[in-house]
Amino acid sequence: MKRIFNFSAGPAILPLQALEKAASELVNFNNSGMSIMEVSHRTPLYENVHNETLQLIREILSVPAEYDILLLQGGASSQFFMVPMNLIKDNMIADYVISGSWSEKAIKEAKILGKKVNIAATSKETNFDRVPSTFNFTKDACYVHITSNETIQGVQYKKFPDTNGVPIIIDASSDIFSYEIDWKNIGLIYAGAQKNAGPAGVTIVIIRKDLYERESDNIPTMLRYSTHAKENSLYNTPPVFSIYMVNLTLKWLKSIGGIPGIKKINEEKAKLIYDVIDQSNGFYKGHAVKENRSTMNVTFTLKNPELESKFIKESEAKNMVGLKGHRSVGGMRASIYNAMPIEGCKLLADFMRDFIKNNA
Amino acid sequence: MKRIFNFSAGPAILPLQALEKAASELVNFNNSGMSIMEVSHRTPLYENVHNETLQLIREILSVPAEYDILLLQGGASSQFFMVPMNLIKDNMIADYVISGSWSEKAIKEAKILGKKVNIAATSKETNFDRVPSTFNFTKDACYVHITSNETIQGVQYKKFPDTNGVPIIIDASSDIFSYEIDWKNIGLIYAGAQKNAGPAGVTIVIIRKDLYERESDNIPTMLRYSTHAKENSLYNTPPVFSIYMVNLTLKWLKSIGGIPGIKKINEEKAKLIYDVIDQSNGFYKGHAVKENRSTMNVTFTLKNPELESKFIKESEAKNMVGLKGHRSVGGMRASIYNAMPIEGCKLLADFMRDFIKNNA
Repeated sequence: MKRIFNFSAGPAILPLQALEKAASELVNFNNSGMSIMEVSHRTPLYENVHNETLQLIREILSVPAEYDILLLQGGASSQFFMVPMNLIKDNMIADYVISGSWSEKAIKEAKILGKKVNIAATSKETNFDRVPSTFNFTKDACYVHITSNETIQGVQYKKFPDTNGVPIIIDASSDIFSYEIDWKNIGLIYAGAQKNAGPAGVTIVIIRKDLYERESDNIPTMLRYSTHAKENSLYNTPPVFSIYMVNLTLKWLKSIGGIPGIKKINEEKAKLIYDVIDQSNGFYKGHAVKENRSTMNVTFTLKNPELESKFIKESEAKNMVGLKGHRSVGGMRASIYNAMPIEGCKLLADFMRDFIKNNA
Repeated sequence: MKRIFNFSAGPAILPLQALEKAASELVNFNNSGMSIMEVSHRTPLYENVHNETLQLIREILSVPAEYDILLLQGGASSQFFMVPMNLIKDNMIADYVISGSWSEKAIKEAKILGKKVNIAATSKETNFDRVPSTFNFTKDACYVHITSNETIQGVQYKKFPDTNGVPIIIDASSDIFSYEIDWKNIGLIYAGAQKNAGPAGVTIVIIRKDLYERESDNIPTMLRYSTHAKENSLYNTPPVFSIYMVNLTLKWLKSIGGIPGIKKINEEKAKLIYDVIDQSNGFYKGHAVKENRSTMNVTFTLKNPELESKFIKESEAKNMVGLKGHRSVGGMRASIYNAMPIEGCKLLADFMRDFIKNNA
């Protein structure tokens, strides 16, 4: 069977082991005579998967007891409004750090709700080739929102800003489960699963329990974090199959050593590609400044943009897909999430070197 | 391989043909070398599945051109607030018909939003053993909300009320794709997929395009119907795998004759079980009055409630699961959605007859 190296930004490559396990029991889960998709979410057969998934998240990320883990729907795009709707009460003001396309979308939704927000820092003036390093935080801000990794621009924080005790809200959609989290000062972390944690259709939210106090009475039941916390994310029917795939994906992650294990591999993977860029004498140009380079999304342009379509075509012929960059940055983007094997990065690095030779 | 007859109310039984197809290509979709879960939602490989699914819904339900079909997340529980949030503007007032547990939940969310609502009819006084048949509609109501089938009580409309031109909003979560829809007066239909259309994780919304005019500016982007309509339900990453399973489920439905085909089978299936109840001399008692009996959820109690656990235990030994009724009605509930084969209903009817003999 042919297996493609899929460099898509999300939905993205999944561990082959997780896919094969799912295929093997898709019609008959756990010898129940039913698919996991058919099982009632109010039976132990599903509840065991659900609770084990929550436990895997807690264990792998060392989530402290004062945080709840929620499994929601609607993607990070829904968290863009749920965060300000639930956490900016009355006259509170929230700070946003703008580091790329996704953080811009996040602040937009807070504004639509009529909430008071402040841009504490932005790297827009350099076309988001870095994350901000100096911040103008509001005194008494109710939270600071940051996007830990910008998939489109390929920039990533290596250290979160010091907010002096103000809760940090992190959109970690594209790099959750790739680094250990220092929970001090974290208020809430959210992530759509479809990059590093599983398939599309489930959103992981990790929230510090004291934040429920800010919810006001006119928020619909489904949009309150406390609803899902109280009901163990079973207030309504959960996205059963997506959660099951997160379960299999995290079991794979645990089996290769959890965060310490994957971090080492990811750094190696990223280095393989960044090294080619740096040694290309300008044939390739990285979009991000070196100190903020993402280990998840490697973005680069070609000195000669006319070669781009040839690059795509020839990489596809070598079983690599999804390398075309986002239109706002141009060029190429190699998304090398947790499930991308190092062989994929080696193949890409070799191809990139050969491509220079054949086109210089 | 053992195959269970799963009478769960949802997530529920799926067509075996759809499950087997999914299992066969889970690791390698369409010979792409990738799972459908891994494919970018911005590539033809996925877009073809997406658009074909929309087309199947349009074709099977004969959806007229003046309606958009949307594929959303969050279940019917999210539509409970999205409907009033988007469709009750300013001083408009909406009518709700209360026929069971789910319509009660729907009106509750409109009230949380501070919207003006009126109960146009309710059958609560008879413990929701029927749907209302006389209505006290508000003059100039902006919509009338009904729940076409109440899964918990097992009551179903056989004909929707005449609202004199006021748009009807239907929660059809538990009976969509089981009858032809007379689109005259329909404003919006919504349905979580996990009963009659596929697995949990995707919500089908069919909306008449003129209703977008009612949206106000302070609604978050993700919560506006018009956002998803404009972007062909690809504004953000869709729940890829759930939509793919809806695709396979609807292809199966089409292959057995679409709505006319399944309607005939469903009536036969329901009759098998209701006949046993009616001929049991009071051993079984149907919850719903005959004229509102659901063809999707057959609810009944046992004259001797002490026999209930024995009924459950012995039915499980005969490969039937999910028959325990909801606590608010008690007794048993046999959910016999589209994908339940007639053999399952025959087995249950035979078992119910034998159970009388052995316990009378």
